[in-house]
Amino acid sequence: MKLTREQLATLETPCVIIDVAQARRNIRDMQRAVTAAGCALRPHVKTHKMALFARMQVEAGARGITCAKVSEAEIMAAGGLRDIFIAYPLVGAFRIRRALALAPTLDRLILAVDSLESAQALSDAARAAGMRVEARLEIDTGAGRTGVPPRRAAELARCIAAMPGLRLTGIYTFKGLIYQGKATQDNALAAKEEGELMREAARGIRAAGVPIADISAGSSPTGVDVARTGMVTEVRPGTYIFKDQMLCREHVAQPEQIAVRYAATVVSAQHEAYAVLDGGSKTFATDIPLHAPPFYYPGYAAVEGRPDLCLSRMNEEHGILTATSGQTGLRVGDVLTLIPIHACTAVNLQNTVYLLEDGALTRHRVDARGMTV
Amino acid sequence: MKLTREQLATLETPCVIIDVAQARRNIRDMQRAVTAAGCALRPHVKTHKMALFARMQVEAGARGITCAKVSEAEIMAAGGLRDIFIAYPLVGAFRIRRALALAPTLDRLILAVDSLESAQALSDAARAAGMRVEARLEIDTGAGRTGVPPRRAAELARCIAAMPGLRLTGIYTFKGLIYQGKATQDNALAAKEEGELMREAARGIRAAGVPIADISAGSSPTGVDVARTGMVTEVRPGTYIFKDQMLCREHVAQPEQIAVRYAATVVSAQHEAYAVLDGGSKTFATDIPLHAPPFYYPGYAAVEGRPDLCLSRMNEEHGILTATSGQTGLRVGDVLTLIPIHACTAVNLQNTVYLLEDGALTRHRVDARGMTV
Repeated sequence: MKLTREQLATLETPCVIIDVAQARRNIRDMQRAVTAAGCALRPHVKTHKMALFARMQVEAGARGITCAKVSEAEIMAAGGLRDIFIAYPLVGAFRIRRALALAPTLDRLILAVDSLESAQALSDAARAAGMRVEARLEIDTGAGRTGVPPRRAAELARCIAAMPGLRLTGIYTFKGLIYQGKATQDNALAAKEEGELMREAARGIRAAGVPIADISAGSSPTGVDVARTGMVTEVRPGTYIFKDQMLCREHVAQPEQIAVRYAATVVSAQHEAYAVLDGGSKTFATDIPLHAPPFYYPGYAAVEGRPDLCLSRMNEEHGILTATSGQTGLRVGDVLTLIPIHACTAVNLQNTVYLLEDGALTRHRVDARGMTV
Repeated sequence: MKLTREQLATLETPCVIIDVAQARRNIRDMQRAVTAAGCALRPHVKTHKMALFARMQVEAGARGITCAKVSEAEIMAAGGLRDIFIAYPLVGAFRIRRALALAPTLDRLILAVDSLESAQALSDAARAAGMRVEARLEIDTGAGRTGVPPRRAAELARCIAAMPGLRLTGIYTFKGLIYQGKATQDNALAAKEEGELMREAARGIRAAGVPIADISAGSSPTGVDVARTGMVTEVRPGTYIFKDQMLCREHVAQPEQIAVRYAATVVSAQHEAYAVLDGGSKTFATDIPLHAPPFYYPGYAAVEGRPDLCLSRMNEEHGILTATSGQTGLRVGDVLTLIPIHACTAVNLQNTVYLLEDGALTRHRVDARGMTV
C-alpha cells in the first residue's frame, strides 16, 4: 500500500486503511485458485464486516457468503447479499427467532447445528413457524471448539435428517490448529487431513441414509490446499481478503499482499527512548493468545519501514513505541502506518475505515462491527 | 448484580449488562469521598462512553467530565454535557479543528498540551480562528507515556502562557504505575507521591510567573487518596463507576461493587472437559499486557459462581471454558454471567449494553464506542 505524505496528512488518526485494489487482487487470486480446483468459494465476512466487500466477493464468483452470527447476517442481507451460511451453532431462542425471520427474505440461508438439542430446538421453532430450514452439521476436525466429533457424526446426522423442521444438506468444519505456528508444508498436511476427515464423515453420513450434498471446510491458511484435495465441495476462508502478519507467519501470504494498515500519529515524544501514538487497546487488536511466547508476538503491530520500532505497551488510547537503538527519532506530529497482527479484530474495533482507491481516500462504515449476537 | 433465570432468558447474548443502581452507588461513594476531601471530581467517561452515565455523574456533583479524545467529547457534548476536559495531547490538524469547532458550543472546554510544538500549533490555530482556548499542561509523574517531565514543566509552562491563542489554567497527570500489581498501602504511597510531584510542579510554574489554578490528578486506584493529600484541586477517576477485576486486585473495589457483567450462552458442549460460549475476542476484552505472568491473568473473564471454570482460549466468536475438575457440567443453552477484567475495553467492544434498573432490562447504545480520533 502506497500512501503519499499528502494522503497521510489528510487522515484522522488513529484509523484503519484498506487498499481496495489489493483487496480485489486477493479476492481474484483466491477465487481463481478455488475455482481451478473445481470447488466453490463461500468467503467468511468476519474479516471485513462490510457489505461492499461481500458484494465484490460474490461478483468475483463466490457462491455466497459465510457469517459468524445472525446479526452479522442481517446486516449483510440488508446490504444486498442473497445467499448466506451462518457457520455457528444456532443456539438460543433469540437467535433462532431472528434467523427464521431472515430466511424468507433470502434466496438461500443455511443454518448450523452441532448437537441434538440445538437441532431439535431449531426444528421445533421452524415447524411452529410453518417453515423447513436448510441446515448443516458442524464436524470437529481438530479445532477443539464447536462441532460433533467425527465418530458421532453419522448417528447425529440421521437424527437431524428425521426432524421435520430441518433439511440437512451438508456438513462443515473449521480446522483451527493450523493457526498454532506451523509452516507451509504443515498447512498442506493439515488441509489433507481436513479433507480426508470430511470425506470420511460425509461417507458415513451418506451410508446412514442421509444424502448430503455440501462438504464445506477451509480457512485462509488451508483454503486453497483443501479445495485441491477434491474431497470437499466448498471452502470458507475469510482473512485472505485483507491478509495480515498472522497469515504471513503461516506462509500463506506475502507482506506486499496485505491490504490493511493502521495509521497513527505521534502525539508525544518527550524522551529519545520512546514515543507515544494516538492509538492503544481501543484501536490496535490485542487478541494475542494468553501466555503466548514473547518471540511469537514481540509487539501489537509492526511499524512499516521501521523494523527497529516496537509497539510493546498500550493503554486504552496510548501506544508506546520503543526503539532497539534506544532512539526512536520520532517527532510530534509524525504519522506512521502499521501492519496488524490480525486483520479481523483490527477492523472490528473501528466504526469506519478509510478506503484507498484510485489514489483517493474515502471513509466507509464498518457495517457489522460489534455484531456478535 | 442479581439476575433471575427469567431475566437471563430474555438476553440476546453475548452482551454486557450494567446494574444502574450499583453504578449510582459507585458514583455517589466516589463523589462523597472526593467532596469530603475538599477536592473537585471530573470523572473520565472512557469507561462507560454513554452520555446517560456522564449526566448522572454531573448530577451527583461532578465539576464536569474528562474525555480521552475529541470525538468522544463531541458525543458527550451532543448528549448535553457542558464542561469537558479532553485529557490528551491535542496533536494533529484534524483534532485541533474539531476541538476549536466544539469549544464555542460548551460552557467550558479544556484542551491538553505536553510539548512546545503541540502548544504552538494549537495556539496558532486558535488565533487564526479568532479564539483563545483554555489549556492544561500534562506532567509525567511516572506513567512513562505522555506528559512533560517535572523538571522541564516550569519552563514549558512559561512559554505556553506567553502564546496568544492559549490560556494556561492548570496542570494534570495520570500516574499509571499503580496498575502494575501493587497493594493498598502502595496505592496510598503512590497517591502521596503523585500529589507531591504535582504540588511541586505547580509551585515551580507559579514561581515562573504563571498563575495556574487547577491541579488535576488521580485515577480510580489513587483518586480518593490523592484527593485527600490536599495537594491537588481535582481528580479524574473513570473505572470506579463500574469497577472490574483489576480494581479488586488493586484493593480499591470489592467484588459486590462491580456493576458490569458479560452474559454468554453455551452453544456447544461436546466433551465433558470443555464447553463453548457464544462470545470470543470480539466480545471479551483482551487488553492483557503482553507477556503478563500466567498467575496474574489466568483467564479472560471470571465466571460468576463457578471459580472452577476458566475462560482460557478464544477465537473471534468462540470462548472455550475448561474446568479444573475436568468436568464443566455445562449444557447447551446455559446462560452464564462473567466478570470483566477491564470494564473500559469490555464496554467499548459493544454497540449496546443492557441496563438493569428497577428489575427491568433495557438496551442502551454505547454512544461513544469506537470514538478514538
